[in-house]
Formats: sequence, C-alpha cells, structure tokens
Amino acid sequence: MNHKESNPISFHVPGHKNGNVFLNSAKSLFKDLLALDVTELNGLDDLHDPEEVIKEAQNLLASYYNAKKSYFLVNGTTVGNIAMLFATINTGELVLVQRNCHKSIINALTLIGATPIFITPQVDINTMTPTGLQHDDVIEALNTYSEAKALILTNPSYYGFAQDLTKIVESAHASQVPVLVDEAHGAHFGLGKPFPKSALQCNADIVVQSAHKTLPAMTMGSYLHINEKSLVDVEKVEYYLKIFQSSSPSYPIMASLDLARNYLQSLNENRINTIISSHSSFINKLKSLNKLKVISDCQESNYILDPLKVIIQASNKATGISLQKQLEKEGIFTELADSKNVLLILPLAEIKNQQEVISKISDALKGVKVPNREVRLNENFVFSRNRRVSKLAFSYKEMEKRKVVTMELAQSSGKIAAEVIIPYPPGIPVLMPGEVITSEKLTEIKNWKDSGVRIQGKSEFNNIKVFDD
Amino acid sequence: MNHKESNPISFHVPGHKNGNVFLNSAKSLFKDLLALDVTELNGLDDLHDPEEVIKEAQNLLASYYNAKKSYFLVNGTTVGNIAMLFATINTGELVLVQRNCHKSIINALTLIGATPIFITPQVDINTMTPTGLQHDDVIEALNTYSEAKALILTNPSYYGFAQDLTKIVESAHASQVPVLVDEAHGAHFGLGKPFPKSALQCNADIVVQSAHKTLPAMTMGSYLHINEKSLVDVEKVEYYLKIFQSSSPSYPIMASLDLARNYLQSLNENRINTIISSHSSFINKLKSLNKLKVISDCQESNYILDPLKVIIQASNKATGISLQKQLEKEGIFTELADSKNVLLILPLAEIKNQQEVISKISDALKGVKVPNREVRLNENFVFSRNRRVSKLAFSYKEMEKRKVVTMELAQSSGKIAAEVIIPYPPGIPVLMPGEVITSEKLTEIKNWKDSGVRIQGKSEFNNIKVFDD
Repeated sequence: MNHKESNPISFHVPGHKNGNVFLNSAKSLFKDLLALDVTELNGLDDLHDPEEVIKEAQNLLASYYNAKKSYFLVNGTTVGNIAMLFATINTGELVLVQRNCHKSIINALTLIGATPIFITPQVDINTMTPTGLQHDDVIEALNTYSEAKALILTNPSYYGFAQDLTKIVESAHASQVPVLVDEAHGAHFGLGKPFPKSALQCNADIVVQSAHKTLPAMTMGSYLHINEKSLVDVEKVEYYLKIFQSSSPSYPIMASLDLARNYLQSLNENRINTIISSHSSFINKLKSLNKLKVISDCQESNYILDPLKVIIQASNKATGISLQKQLEKEGIFTELADSKNVLLILPLAEIKNQQEVISKISDALKGVKVPNREVRLNENFVFSRNRRVSKLAFSYKEMEKRKVVTMELAQSSGKIAAEVIIPYPPGIPVLMPGEVITSEKLTEIKNWKDSGVRIQGKSEFNNIKVFDD
Repeated sequence: MNHKESNPISFHVPGHKNGNVFLNSAKSLFKDLLALDVTELNGLDDLHDPEEVIKEAQNLLASYYNAKKSYFLVNGTTVGNIAMLFATINTGELVLVQRNCHKSIINALTLIGATPIFITPQVDINTMTPTGLQHDDVIEALNTYSEAKALILTNPSYYGFAQDLTKIVESAHASQVPVLVDEAHGAHFGLGKPFPKSALQCNADIVVQSAHKTLPAMTMGSYLHINEKSLVDVEKVEYYLKIFQSSSPSYPIMASLDLARNYLQSLNENRINTIISSHSSFINKLKSLNKLKVISDCQESNYILDPLKVIIQASNKATGISLQKQLEKEGIFTELADSKNVLLILPLAEIKNQQEVISKISDALKGVKVPNREVRLNENFVFSRNRRVSKLAFSYKEMEKRKVVTMELAQSSGKIAAEVIIPYPPGIPVLMPGEVITSEKLTEIKNWKDSGVRIQGKSEFNNIKVFDD
C-alpha cells in the first residue's frame, strides 16, 4: 500500500505497469488491484527469501495459528501437498495414505516413486460420503508397516466432516511417524467452538490449508504450517516450496492471504456468535422447505460437520446434479453435486437477504422432477471392504514402464488397474492405479452402477484401463 | 463477465463470495476484481480439462501465435519450464542446456535426475551480459552427445539480447533433438519488426513465455506453446501441467491472459510505429543526460536488443546498484541492477509524461557518487573458458546422497562444488553444483572478485559449499 500510494513510475515487470497499460475495455475492472500487482522491488521483499514485509506477515500468520513457521502459498494447497511430501519421503519409501486423498497427494507420491499403503475412511450414512479414518485402522497400519515414513490424512472431508485427530497423531508419533494433514477445507478451524479443532491443535507435523476456500482470500492462496514440535525438516519444506512455486509470486494473492489472517483475528466471540446465529436462521428456513432434506450435522459421535457446510438432498430422490441445475437457473451457485447430494459452503459472515435466497431455492425446487431412475444407495456397498488397509500390486516406477490398454470392465478380473475408479458418492476410490481388480471389486463397481451413481462423472461406465501383462 | 453480471449468489469457494466478504479496510480495492475470482462452476469451464470458454480462449491464443496448441499457465514460466522438461526427459537421460538458464530449469533437471551438458553463451561487451549460444558450440555439443534428448535454450536473455534461433533449431532437428525454449522475456516477440523473432517462428518444439513480464497480464500468468511440427508428446505436457499447477487456478489471472492476447491483436502496424517512436523519443532524451551511458542496441551483428529493454550505466563508473538506489529515491523503479548496469523495461505502449520522468532521472543522477572502488570488468574473464561445452563430475542423484561442507574458497581446488557461483554481471555461473573446482575456475572467480562485481549478491565472497569426499 505504501508503494502504491507513492505513485511510483514503473520500468519493471509486470507489463501492465501498475495497471496503466491494459486493454481499454477491461481496464476499469482490473485497475485498482493491478496497482498492487508488483514484483520483488526493494522494500517489497521476496516470498522465496523473506526478510521484510512478507516475513512479518508470515510471522503474524504463524503466531495466529501457534505454528513454528507458516508460509503463504500462491499455487494453492496443491503445491503445499507436493512440497510436504517431497520434503518427507524418498523414492521407494513406504507411506500410509488416507484413501480419499486429493489427487495432488497421489501425483506427488507417483513423482517421488513412494510406496503407498491406503487406509479406507469411514462413511457418513446420511450423505454416503467419507468422514475420516478409524483410529483402529491407523493402529493396524502402523503396526503392520512400522517402516512407514509418514501418515497422510485429509481432514475435514470435502463435504465438511471433521474429527479430532489428537489420538491418531499420538499413535503415529509413538511410532516416530510424522503426520501430514491436507486441511484444505479447514483454514477457519482453530477459531474455536463451534468450529472443529485444527490438525495443528492436534499436533500434526505439517498442515496445509486452502485459505481461499473458506476465508476471504483470493483463489490459489493457501497456508502451510509447521508445528512447534514437528518431526520434519523445515529447510527441506522451504526448498521444495521454492522449486514448485513461480519465481514471480502474485502480490495480490499474498496480500489477500495477509488480509485473510487479519479477518480471522477480527472475529471475536461476539462476532462469531452473530455469524452462527445468522447461519442457524438460514438453515432453519432451508429445513422448512418441504421438498428438501437438509443435513447440517453428523450422527456419528466422533465427527462433527463444519458449520460452514450444509448438504442438501431432494426429498423426491432426484439426483444432486439435477437439483444443482435447478438452483443455477435461479442464480444460486453451489460448490458440488453428486448423484445424491448438493454441497453448500456458507460465508464466514452473516448470510444476507435470506428471504430472497430462500425464495429462489424454493422456486428451484419446483423444477426438480421425480427421476426416471432413482439412486438407491446401499450402505453395505461401502462396508463390504473387509480389508481397510491395502497395498499396491506394483510400484509407480513399475507402472511408468508398462503399456496401458483399455478393456471391458466385466472381463478385467485379475488384471491390474491403470486408472482410478471413483463413484460419486461416496467419492472414495474403489480401485486405484496399481491395484488388483478382484471379483469382489467388480461386484462393488456393479453395485454402484446399479445404484445409479455416476462413476468418473459418467452415467455409463463399461470399460477400464489396465496394465498390459 | 456474463457470470458476474448475472448477480449470482455464491454458496461455493472462494470464501470471499464474489467479493462480498472481505476485510473492510481493503474491500474497495479488491472488490471489482474479486467478482471475477470464481471457481469451476458450470459454464465457467476448467483449465485442467477445458471444453468451453477456456478452450476457446486457448484456441485464440494458439491461432495468434501459429501454434499447434497453446496453454494458459497460472504458476508462471516456472511451471511451464518444469512441465516441458518432465514431458521430454527421463531419469539418467542426457540434455544440452544453455548455461545461464533460469533456476527452474536446473530445479527440474535435478528432480528428474537428468544428465545436463552445459553450453556457455556468448557475452555482449558493452554490458558484459550474456547474449545467446554460438551455433558452432551447439553443433559441437550435438555431435559429441548424439544421445541427447533435448536442447534447452534461453532466448532472449534477461537483459533483452535475442538471436534468430532458426539455424540452431535446424541443427538440433537434424539430430532428432527437440528444442525447448524459455522465452520468458519474449511474449511480445512475433509482433513483427522491430521486435525479434519468436522461437515459435524459428520452429522450436515448445516455447514458454511470461505473458506477465512484457504484456499487460497479471503476475504468474504465462503461456506455453507447442509448435505445429513439434517432436514432443502433447499429452505428457498436459499431464505435467495438471500435476504442477493448482487444482483451483485463478480466474483473474486466466482472464488477464486472454486480455493480453487480445491486446497484442489490437496492435496494428500504425500503433506499433507510434509506440516505437515514443520509445525513441524517450531514449534520445535519456541519451542527452550527460552522466548516463545508454545502451539500446547490440553491436554483435547476429543479436538485437529487444526494443522494450534499455540498459543504462553511470558514466562515473558507479555501480548499477547505487544508480538504481538513486532512481528509487525519485520514485523511478527499475527491473534489475548489477555491479555495472541498470535494466529498464519499457511499456508495450507510449511512454507518458516523458519530460517529468527524464527530469526525475536527471535529479537521481546528481546523487550518484563516484565510487571508492571502481568496477573494472575485463572481457578476457568471460572468454577465458576454453571449454564451452562441459559436463558434471557426478549426477544429481549422486549429489543427493553426499554430505555438503563449507570451506575456504582459496583451499577448494580439486573439490566438487555443491552450490552455484554467479558473478553479476555477467550472470553466467562460473561453477554449477557437481562441477570440479579447477585452478582455472578459481582464477576466474578471483578475477571477478578483484573487478569489484558482486558474487551471490554479496560484496565479499570467501567460502564455498562443496561435497564431502
């Protein structure tokens, strides 16, 4: 801001020269923020070697989250996940991974050539979406694979189910295994009740959060925190963050990350109560709509649903996808839809014009037709997996060398999958690349297909990519 | 824009909800652009699987640059360099690399575990900065290392020296070696004369450009182009772009990349002439300042200096760094300063208020003191290297395993360097990690030190990191 207000003359990058050079038709829209879109000038510090304002901002962030060190990320949680894995795991080493992790985790493990052991999460019955790992499953994995170099968790789930990770982290640490948490959807955790506990408060070693998802920050703005007693090598994390992020990081995104931290600090108990009461009032209005089933909490005692997440379903069994489409016709844009659910993310602020919004949702519901084919989810599908801890048939390095062919799903028993197969919901992979296609897995896929859910975003799913023998 | 103007209600990420939730003190500055900071909603397409507006915008980009395919990058040229290298080179494979490449190239080669063969560039005498590779050196490298999987070039140089790459590319293609070009500073090439030729017009296989550096695009916005007759695997490039970029790419950055392409198309011959004539007038005014040496072209016949770059030096032999500091006191911010030069990047538009700017520069010059210690560059330093094509003593994988120790530079003869040693100018590494510290290299470093240039940004440089035996 000081730089901007000094009316500087730019003979440097970026090419828009503080917003003065820009396509005329878009100039007024971009101009204000372009004055902040600067570069590593003297006095403006350097994200990759911070010593001044960026260091100060990151210190304020660490202090707010009680972290040893905190970092601004400008390439999303994607880059945080990649950097924390590269800093912790070497080629050929074994890691315990929550099965419904973000694709950036699998991508990083593949690049590293790590050996993943997958642990299947539990499922919330109302929504048929994943919650988190069962403590017993983690203990089994830690005992079976004592050579594991890390435990990689995803908490909360995309749909907002969160658990207190304290005991799981304790067990991992007792085995000298660091815990890395993708907390993409939980940057606002740590505000205290009624919000869930952050993985940082549960002593996880590294925690990555998408500030842009739930805080008022620009898209691609994320945080990476290293815990006070972390077992991991801080210098290695910094080394990989430098490698995988642009050498010209965006100042508007960085500024918005600092402002988002400030916003969080501005939320005192009073303000949080006001926000939560506004949300309650909105949720009650939603619940009064008679064509809608509203899920705003979790029935499993050890999970809570993030108060910023509301899941809705059409009472007439229409798919979430068709419900979402109707809402969009009324100008209501939601986060996510699957064969069953629509996910709403509420603001970390009061919800304004509630009556108007509810009336639009009510109008949308009128258009939701009873489906030709009902989605019938059977909770047994997801519990059919007797092996919740599983490993790959062969390594990522091995997969790189093999040829991939496409074949009929029904004929693929005994082959090794070369692609991930995910029904939505629950959004948990039935098959991962490198896993054996057993007859049990084929039955499970058939069950999902028969239930009417979408697999890989398609309503028909008959072929699968496998590795050639 | 259509989405924004429909007054949508957001129950999705990002958390600022179309700019409505934001720290009050910064709201007015960010609000306009936050309305464009959206996510992959229906109708807004998906950078990682483009089928609608983003596909259309990328097609317009490809069509403008005559490329087979063009991509918007939201993590800078850094991610383009990383992706093009991962798509082309496997572990242990040999690549020919211009010695003064960007650190992202070395980072990618290290991650891949490739075997680089470095080719030293030529140097411009006036500025003592690198220009480009000599055709003969490339031919020598291609003949000596016929198993090379790629030739990686940097053109233009950071200071703006550019050559026509046609013959070099021809030679590489004759040996079936694809050419990958980091054209970070040349996104505006291809506008035609008086601008240099783009590597795309010289038939390079992949070309990465920082749109944000010279075009009116937001920082972190870059382009990657694949040439019509490219030898490389397009699917592999796309695979790695997906992996190394955020799964939530920034819409404002993408929009600015589309607008920058539109801006380029709006520049007809008339408009370019007006811009160039405004630049000439500015450069002539600069030249009239008697304490300043102005370099606005190249004396070597096969190079031209990009018309958007002007290099200035203090006539009294003060360092570029001290000249830059004086300019900043007058509110003039420049791109880069080294022990000798200050680099100015001109706008791709008329330069306004020229008299005022020149008067500020003139005031700045009054403060530039005759230095205690003059920088005396000897052109023989850079030409002392009889071996312009060189390889590493051991591989990146080997380096990873070795311990690093710090020792006195003067005692390090015969050891293997574990860090890069770069004097500014010329900004060409004297030593790369993995290279033998010969007595010849030590003499060269001593010469640079005696000349008064900064090494690693420090005025004193006495220790070096080496690999333990």
